[in-house]
Formats: sequence, C-alpha cells, structure tokens
Amino acid sequence: MNILVTLAFHGGAYHGFQVQKNGRTVCEVFQDALEQLLGDRPDVKGCSRTDAGVHALDFKLNFHADTRIPMQKLPLALNRYLPADVRVLDARQVPEDFHARYWAHSKEYTYRLKNSAIDSPFEQGLYWRSPSPLDADAMHAAAQQLVGTHDFAAFMSAGSSIADTVRTIHRFSVTREGDMVLFKVAADGYLYNMVRILCGTLVEIGAGRMPAEGIARALESRKRSDAGPTLPPQGLFLSHVYYEPEGGTG
Amino acid sequence: MNILVTLAFHGGAYHGFQVQKNGRTVCEVFQDALEQLLGDRPDVKGCSRTDAGVHALDFKLNFHADTRIPMQKLPLALNRYLPADVRVLDARQVPEDFHARYWAHSKEYTYRLKNSAIDSPFEQGLYWRSPSPLDADAMHAAAQQLVGTHDFAAFMSAGSSIADTVRTIHRFSVTREGDMVLFKVAADGYLYNMVRILCGTLVEIGAGRMPAEGIARALESRKRSDAGPTLPPQGLFLSHVYYEPEGGTG
Repeated sequence: MNILVTLAFHGGAYHGFQVQKNGRTVCEVFQDALEQLLGDRPDVKGCSRTDAGVHALDFKLNFHADTRIPMQKLPLALNRYLPADVRVLDARQVPEDFHARYWAHSKEYTYRLKNSAIDSPFEQGLYWRSPSPLDADAMHAAAQQLVGTHDFAAFMSAGSSIADTVRTIHRFSVTREGDMVLFKVAADGYLYNMVRILCGTLVEIGAGRMPAEGIARALESRKRSDAGPTLPPQGLFLSHVYYEPEGGTG
Repeated sequence: MNILVTLAFHGGAYHGFQVQKNGRTVCEVFQDALEQLLGDRPDVKGCSRTDAGVHALDFKLNFHADTRIPMQKLPLALNRYLPADVRVLDARQVPEDFHARYWAHSKEYTYRLKNSAIDSPFEQGLYWRSPSPLDADAMHAAAQQLVGTHDFAAFMSAGSSIADTVRTIHRFSVTREGDMVLFKVAADGYLYNMVRILCGTLVEIGAGRMPAEGIARALESRKRSDAGPTLPPQGLFLSHVYYEPEGGTG
C-alpha cells in the first residue's frame, strides 16, 4: 500500500531532506527508522528537497510498503526509531499513484526574522536576526509585486542548471509579531534559494537600503545582482504543502 | 549607582538563579560577566530564587556599581560575556534603595504543557508533555477556587521550613492554543514548588482523575497528599515581575 507521512523536523543537523553523499539527511534517518520497524527499506518520495539547515513544520513524503501496523499507530511506532529532531506527526493510506512531490499544487514557506539587537535564549537556530529597524508594512506592500506569474531568474543562486525560471507566487505576506518579522510565501514551485533571496531583498527594502521599485527592476533585468542577499537557512521553514488548488481544502 | 537589569534565560543548564554550592547558577554566570566588564564583582539581588531547570522571560535583578557605560549600551556589553542561554534584555538606573525582591508586588509564572502524544522537534526542554486529553475549560473553572488569600500548605513540597503558608493569588488562567495548554498564575509570593503542584493538581482535574472539588478539599486539609503531583521544571517560566500593585503600570 501507499503511505503518506507528515513530518516535522529541525533541520540544523541535516544536509536537507534528499539523500546525498556528503552528509546526513532527513530521508536517510527516516529510511533507517522504516527499516528498523518494517525490516524493509522502501524508496521514499519527499515533497521537496529542502536545503541544508532548513526546517519543516509540515513535510510530506510517501512510500510503498506492506504492514499490518494500523495507520494511527504508525507515528508513535516510527518516532521510537527516529532522533528527537525528526517527528512523524501523521500517517495515512493514499491512492496507489499518489506522489508527494508531483501531486503537490503549491508549497508555503515561512521565514522568521528577529528584528532585534539581542538574541533569544530559547530559539537558537530557529530564526535569523537583523538589528536594523525594519518597516514590515513597507515590506508587505513591496512583496505584492512578486505575486503572480513571473520570471524569477534574478532570485536564483548561481549553480542551478534549471532552464525554466518562470514560477507562480499565489500570495506573499510580511507581518510583525513583537520583534519577530514573519514572511509567508506560497508558490507552485521555487528556484534554488529563491525564498531566501526574496526575503533578503525585502529586508533591504524594509531597512531603507533599496527602493521598493528594486523588485520590478530585478524581475525585468533577470540579474542576480539586482536582488538582495541570500538570508541564512536557519530562519526558513517549509510550513505547508497543498494537494488541492489554493482555495481548496489543502 | 543602583542598576536594575532584566534577563531572559533558558534554565536547562542551571541550578536555579541563586548562588549555591552544588552547581552552576544564573547569578554566578551573571556575576562572572559583570566582573569581566567592570573589573568588580558586586552583590546581586534577584527577584526570585527559581528552581533548577526553570526558565525566565522577565527576570529582574539589581546591583550597585559605578560605571561610565551608558545604561542603553549595558545589555550588549554584558551579553558579550554571557553564555547564549542567558541574555540581558534591559538595564536602567533605579533609586538607591530599590531591591529587586523586596520591591516586587507580585510575580507571574507561566507553565507550558503540550497535550499531545508527540514531542516537538523545535522546543525541546521548553514544555512538559501530557498525552491524556485535557479539558482546559474545566481546568480554568477549577483554578478560580485558588484565587484569593488562602493557606496553600497542601501545595508545598516537603523539605521547606517556611512557617507562614498563606499567600494571595491575584489571578489564575488556563487556556489552550492548539495542543499547548498554558497556565498563568500571578501571586504575591509562592511556596516551594507551589506553581508546579498547582498545575499538577489541575492536570488531574482536566484529565478527569480528580473532581474539581479536590482543590477546596486540599486547601482545607492542608495535606500534600490531597493535591496532585509536582510537574517537572522544564515547562515553567517566570514570565513577569510587577513592581506596582496589579492594575498599576507593572
């Protein structure tokens, strides 16, 4: 049967989700847990690769396996074999042809930026900190230029071989909760480091170091140098995956 | 001059605030930082002792020292010499006779209880987890019996030599935010482990293992055995210290 699992993980100790040669990945520890529980090591399809150090609140994956463990007991059973920074939140049976990545309509990422001169003693590794005062309202207004279907080539790190750099952003909000500035973006797909460069560009605008029109200029020029810096991974969370079109049940 | 400092700290690595023989304390690392910055190690008066492992969002302390460092620069200067789990949030000059403990009218503690079968990968050591379904509304209603001036002898751990066990609780709320149950209590003072026993008693009521009237019975009997268990320290935060009567500016 085809099993859909929801994970939350702290990405600080991992080289992203996808199995690779030069470091421990979330997929690898998940497959280790599957193997210990089921005696089998099925292929796992993740909804996203996620970069090294990035966190997830709602990561979806699927795999095919035969087990008599009831689905509602699978989370606790798997969590016994997983490290504390990776937790299974849910497991359910899905149609045989369901694929966690191909069936996803859109994904929401959240970036947490602490706008303060002082770090938090409680959330180390769960935000990025920027001491310059940021105007979240101005950032939210500027972000609306990004919504829609655009060529985001300027907002992609070098080293990617992707040819089609057109993506659709469904919504982008920037809000302030105390000294925490929260960026939320939902799109049908993302280029390499796209969310972190988009947020880095909005920080330049919010700090008054770039005019709001800088976004339109970068979209038009397609030049990486017209966009802002890439923010570090520790503020980034994959926060939701939608398997229905936006406006659907999610 | 007399300096009032606000700290936030993660208590996981400390034997409470107050200097003692058998373990590292927050006061000790704070005095170490003062000594490195000022070349002097003044006495420090904390607003509370706090138990081993307990956290603080708003811990107040004061000390007398002569320094030409402007007050608004003192937090960053001290934070350079403090470990990452202890942060100075604010520093200001106060009247010569101000005392962080004696001048406090009341203190608010918050207890965070995750009501779930699954731990969080992000907040390790910052909550206690209880899998039995809890009725937060019933706990809130039962907690109102605690508000007012009562003899809280039943809600004190053995080993305390305090004779006067009468305290005044100004307010007590229990609310649910998703799977997190939050207890907030403000009182003029607390007996040994009092908040953790009060919350432990309310958990018994919320899980249906004790009737709501158990609180009135424990208040009347003054017997520790009539109250619930002592919850562990990692869910407990000193969340506010009031230097004005409740209803004042705080």
